[in-house]
Amino acid sequence: MTSWLSIPSGSHFSLANIPFGIISTSAVPAHRPAIAIGTHVLDLAAFAHGGGFARLTAFPHSQLGVFAETTLNAFAALGRPTHRLVRQYLRDVFLTETPYPEALKANPTLQQTALLPLSGVQTHLPLSIGDYTDFFAGRNHAFNVGTLFRGPANALNPNYNHLPVGYHGRASSVVVSGTPLHRPRGQVLPAPGATTPVFQPAARLDIELEIGVFISRGNPLGRPIPVDEAEEYIFGYVLMNDWSARDIQQWEYVPLGPFNAKNFGTTISAWVVLADALDPFRTQGLPNDVEMQSYLCEDRKDNIIAIHLEVDIQTAKGNKSTITRTSSKNLLWSWPQMIAHHTISGCNLRTGDLLGSGTVSGIVEGTHGSLLEQTQGGKVAIEIGGETRKFLEDGDTVVIRGWSGDNRDELVGFGECEGQILAATT
Amino acid sequence: MTSWLSIPSGSHFSLANIPFGIISTSAVPAHRPAIAIGTHVLDLAAFAHGGGFARLTAFPHSQLGVFAETTLNAFAALGRPTHRLVRQYLRDVFLTETPYPEALKANPTLQQTALLPLSGVQTHLPLSIGDYTDFFAGRNHAFNVGTLFRGPANALNPNYNHLPVGYHGRASSVVVSGTPLHRPRGQVLPAPGATTPVFQPAARLDIELEIGVFISRGNPLGRPIPVDEAEEYIFGYVLMNDWSARDIQQWEYVPLGPFNAKNFGTTISAWVVLADALDPFRTQGLPNDVEMQSYLCEDRKDNIIAIHLEVDIQTAKGNKSTITRTSSKNLLWSWPQMIAHHTISGCNLRTGDLLGSGTVSGIVEGTHGSLLEQTQGGKVAIEIGGETRKFLEDGDTVVIRGWSGDNRDELVGFGECEGQILAATT
Repeated sequence: MTSWLSIPSGSHFSLANIPFGIISTSAVPAHRPAIAIGTHVLDLAAFAHGGGFARLTAFPHSQLGVFAETTLNAFAALGRPTHRLVRQYLRDVFLTETPYPEALKANPTLQQTALLPLSGVQTHLPLSIGDYTDFFAGRNHAFNVGTLFRGPANALNPNYNHLPVGYHGRASSVVVSGTPLHRPRGQVLPAPGATTPVFQPAARLDIELEIGVFISRGNPLGRPIPVDEAEEYIFGYVLMNDWSARDIQQWEYVPLGPFNAKNFGTTISAWVVLADALDPFRTQGLPNDVEMQSYLCEDRKDNIIAIHLEVDIQTAKGNKSTITRTSSKNLLWSWPQMIAHHTISGCNLRTGDLLGSGTVSGIVEGTHGSLLEQTQGGKVAIEIGGETRKFLEDGDTVVIRGWSGDNRDELVGFGECEGQILAATT
Repeated sequence: MTSWLSIPSGSHFSLANIPFGIISTSAVPAHRPAIAIGTHVLDLAAFAHGGGFARLTAFPHSQLGVFAETTLNAFAALGRPTHRLVRQYLRDVFLTETPYPEALKANPTLQQTALLPLSGVQTHLPLSIGDYTDFFAGRNHAFNVGTLFRGPANALNPNYNHLPVGYHGRASSVVVSGTPLHRPRGQVLPAPGATTPVFQPAARLDIELEIGVFISRGNPLGRPIPVDEAEEYIFGYVLMNDWSARDIQQWEYVPLGPFNAKNFGTTISAWVVLADALDPFRTQGLPNDVEMQSYLCEDRKDNIIAIHLEVDIQTAKGNKSTITRTSSKNLLWSWPQMIAHHTISGCNLRTGDLLGSGTVSGIVEGTHGSLLEQTQGGKVAIEIGGETRKFLEDGDTVVIRGWSGDNRDELVGFGECEGQILAATT
């Protein structure tokens, strides 16, 4: 599979990918849908306006307005069969032997208005998020953190292997990659065993390496989504950094869970990798030997998407280190299981809802998705260039990368999920 | 203060109130803003269209479009000074000696199109809700429930008096009064001490009597709202029933808090009582003797709104009993304190966000806002007509009523927050 457009080897945005996002440019400040392809983006508003979809006859042209929207919600709501159709058509448009040369390859005018250098566009939140739910499906993470607090024998809570534990997160503060965030201030205990809090900038600011999923269409209230149908409700995937202030969390979280420790910001990558693009990378997740409730039992065994994951920290001084290399195969629960569990109560999902996987961690050193695990609860510093870190310092930039596949000409990648921590506001 | 419109004594919707909602009618199915007044509503879309706001010269008429919207978000976003102006004008329109007789009193044509019987309209969710946050500010409830699980000495967790504990709730399943909800199914432990769950319809389905607040305008991410400015961010108040499946909650809630136990539905009353309407009913909340962090210290001491609260249960057989009579004075934390705490991390609020108070309970029997407390954890049944209840049964209807004031001609009431529990879906 080759393209008439030059796509560098190793690009996350190969012909096998075709991820969707929302862009603006200094020339055209309106937010509009686009796809990323190599070092370019195709502005879908301009492409649609210029007749680029004329040959996509299976797509009702009365619906082309979805590409003039400021978010991907309307496109997502059309459902997976439509996403499949559009993604495949757009890939075909870029093939060397494209069946639709007049759409773009042989249309220099449309190329000029619609095909833009990736480096020249600003990306925005791809969807308007209704509710954001964060799960806890990374079993090694749950075990590692539980071990720190309760020892290995009681590391996993009794419910952990029976249901995908999750909680409702904060949707308003989900930001797109590249948005800096201020260190939160809050109540923390000044020392172990203290019972009176002090108020200060969080001292134990951490990252959580996660995968996110956007919901394409929802279910009516009171009507659970069966686990074997849940795949059809997925629009696509992003990388996520669920920033966490451990000291705020420790004081506030009993009995209702994390609140201010996490609601100051959650960063997602800009390009939504469609479910179909990741379908070839299915594999099995971690084994679970409890007897599963039937609403969580899936027909298919290859229920996890294998994604290579890496985390870099770059300090304000410019030192940089890849602190984590791991894989999404470290998830115990699949997305269909999380969706089935979320809705088994009758809870309704809606287009644009965002689900997080929970922190993805391996077992050995250098595979952990949080500093809490890497530094054994802040006890052992890690090295970044000549500097050390137990938790994040002001000016630190965290970059998460993720991709599926090993053939460098056909990577299905997410690009980067990046965020810098600024000093607390006063 | 008297009206040319007949307003029955004891009406929740007196001239002192003027609450806002969203209605539709069989004749005009479009959702549109309205106010409730006695046994009528004033359709604000029709009123604006018919020139009813002509004399409200301080309101920019270019903004009249907010009354043609399908939610109150655009109106809420205009801010409290505008809400004050519009509410006072509409009240004046209904005065016997109205300074604006041509607006409605002497305008039978507009009366015919805009003044509708309350009994003939359908109400809808008043605002599109971005995020829904539920607090835990009813200290007696926290104490009562903590006592059931841990005894009175450890009833309140160490953080309780230091910060308004809260968690992120589920926005998608907030429904307007009158919407029936199916009993949720989920994982529960079959007996105390069991470690393997069973899957079944929740057997311990409960209510939570709460007050809700809608946010008028938000704050930028990273910019906390100071406690003494927080009042200006409040649009208005509703009653809320935070339905809770106690058996699902008990199994799932460690360590991230309630999830499926509550996300199947939350009911709110239809009419938003504006902050200004409740301002005359300020009083002091429960005393708190811990040294408060400065970001929670308010200049004013009368920081709680006094609201009389009642809960009825009506069974499928038609038996009915008022099981609870209490007051919002049982809150430890004020709304400005909850808003200041919510945002102190930098978290942003947005127009239409909904905050819940947490369950409001008194101390003695008959003042509890949940069945869990009333029945001492399901041990002691309460009587409803000739029937008994420990938790809710299928077909039960719960009605919450709330009002401020004691002069029956000037009540500022919420109407009802009503919901029926249907059998679990199979």
